[in-house]
Amino acid sequence: MKILITGGAGFVGTRLARALLERGHLRGRPIDTLVLTDQFPARPEMAQHPRVQVRTAALLAQCEALREEPFDAVFHLASAVSGECEADFDLGLRSNLDSTRALLDALRHRTERGAAPTCLVFSSSIAVFGPDPAYPFPEVVGDSTLPMPQTSYGTQKLVCEHLIADYTRKGYIDGRTARLVTVTVRPGRPNGAASSFFSGIIREPLAGEDAALPVDLSVRHPVGSVQSMVRGLIAVAEASREAFVGRSAITLPGLNVSVQEMLDALEKVAGAKVRARVKPQRDERIAAIVANWPRGVVTPRANALGLQAEASFEDIIRLYIEDCRRDNPQALRGLDS
Amino acid sequence: MKILITGGAGFVGTRLARALLERGHLRGRPIDTLVLTDQFPARPEMAQHPRVQVRTAALLAQCEALREEPFDAVFHLASAVSGECEADFDLGLRSNLDSTRALLDALRHRTERGAAPTCLVFSSSIAVFGPDPAYPFPEVVGDSTLPMPQTSYGTQKLVCEHLIADYTRKGYIDGRTARLVTVTVRPGRPNGAASSFFSGIIREPLAGEDAALPVDLSVRHPVGSVQSMVRGLIAVAEASREAFVGRSAITLPGLNVSVQEMLDALEKVAGAKVRARVKPQRDERIAAIVANWPRGVVTPRANALGLQAEASFEDIIRLYIEDCRRDNPQALRGLDS
Repeated sequence: MKILITGGAGFVGTRLARALLERGHLRGRPIDTLVLTDQFPARPEMAQHPRVQVRTAALLAQCEALREEPFDAVFHLASAVSGECEADFDLGLRSNLDSTRALLDALRHRTERGAAPTCLVFSSSIAVFGPDPAYPFPEVVGDSTLPMPQTSYGTQKLVCEHLIADYTRKGYIDGRTARLVTVTVRPGRPNGAASSFFSGIIREPLAGEDAALPVDLSVRHPVGSVQSMVRGLIAVAEASREAFVGRSAITLPGLNVSVQEMLDALEKVAGAKVRARVKPQRDERIAAIVANWPRGVVTPRANALGLQAEASFEDIIRLYIEDCRRDNPQALRGLDS
Repeated sequence: MKILITGGAGFVGTRLARALLERGHLRGRPIDTLVLTDQFPARPEMAQHPRVQVRTAALLAQCEALREEPFDAVFHLASAVSGECEADFDLGLRSNLDSTRALLDALRHRTERGAAPTCLVFSSSIAVFGPDPAYPFPEVVGDSTLPMPQTSYGTQKLVCEHLIADYTRKGYIDGRTARLVTVTVRPGRPNGAASSFFSGIIREPLAGEDAALPVDLSVRHPVGSVQSMVRGLIAVAEASREAFVGRSAITLPGLNVSVQEMLDALEKVAGAKVRARVKPQRDERIAAIVANWPRGVVTPRANALGLQAEASFEDIIRLYIEDCRRDNPQALRGLDS
């Protein structure tokens, strides 16, 4: 089978591509070709892989060509992130809404010419939820919580969820949406996402650098490893359609933790010296965005697919350390041993 | 002040225009000019009114020009109806989604050049709600019910609600959404809406014609007079912003009735001979769409604005008969007296 990953050069996209190549099959069929589209270049080992095709251009510019290309499954991960969407409203609408519609219409074009509906897995976000001035804000959100996004990013994700549900209802695609929790620990540099610090406060100290903490220690948030999110995306692709009926999305499991618990775990895994590199430095812009995010998730539908969050935040840090030992030992230069 | 009504030649648009001209003011300011845009021509008495400008063209084609034109308030009623959207997917996306976005961007264009955010009242619909396979379908829906539309029309309305909420949050507009219940009794001919029969089973017998009833007598649905919906749209335009916080829309009050109760009311008001002109003639396509609609509404937020549904369906029929006596006595040729 032939699979498309949009945003295929990104952090989650690359890990998903690796996982698919390693398992070699999806939905009971062998994977012959993996097409990675992204506005940024893919990693060299991906570009050189015999079963991978890399296409570097904005998704919106690629959709016209995609109309004539058959895919058996599409993982639609390409997205501008929350901070970018707040800073540049048009960028968010173009990258997150217009691009998704163009992709949906490309897939629909094939169905209207007799092809079976393509399986599309859309990565949405718990950013579809906002605080609720009409009722007490729920401590945890789930698939039946009324989404009231308070960011453009969350709005665009929610809008795409509903468009995907309607294209699916019409038989144009076989669409499924997974709402990802905040992926932690992301490697590399801080990005434009307001959630970037959730990785930074672990990643920077492990690399021997100071990290700014823009919010209070009491802030609670659901987080998950990239491994766990990749497992979720694959499980959602392979689930029966019935698992999705009646809701626009399945929220993937997350570990509901406070920043305090995250830093305690860091100290336990890496020591007090590493922990001390996190310096409180409140950022009102970030704090305001994060205050509007859920403090936890409850995910019975995802759990019914066999998905579970990590048991502790220490596990999440250890997964990151293992990754770094293999891929980029320099990222651990802040560790004593 | 200068007011724009999109869909201004339609049934609700025309009645809203009349009501605004009669009251002469909105939000505490006198109404100087009313601009009616519609793809269909406006009624002659509107086109000839000294305070009314009529522009006949598709909304999407008019939005570029609207970018340079200041309005103090906009009532956005233009929309393809539910039956049309199911039959022609592209028409629905263009008429309901693309046109709304172009209108929002036209209003945003002015704000970005220093103008105050324009008050925009969007007419959404209770079609944003669908049945709930995950939970028992609520007998009545309200502003806190999770919308899961099961039609393209409902999806597009919901998507626009969320875009309007985000444009408002960003300060580009002062947007408010009213979810209308099914307007009954609509005059004229049946239209492409799946809800068309809710008017037809009253209108046709009063005009001396047979009417097909495509659903069971037990079907329940919230309905309201056009007078009540117009009052609702004006109240929503004049409400404080705080009345909307935390929800994407305010559901307007409706009378929750069964088809049986509607026909009993018809017999009471117009006699058994008129009632007997309604003939059961099941239409599976219509019945399937209607089965996915709410059976009633509960509207505490609208009630807090002073809005109330009619007390009985007989009142709704009598309002229609009064209208016909004034505007079109021919429509009552089925009445004995």
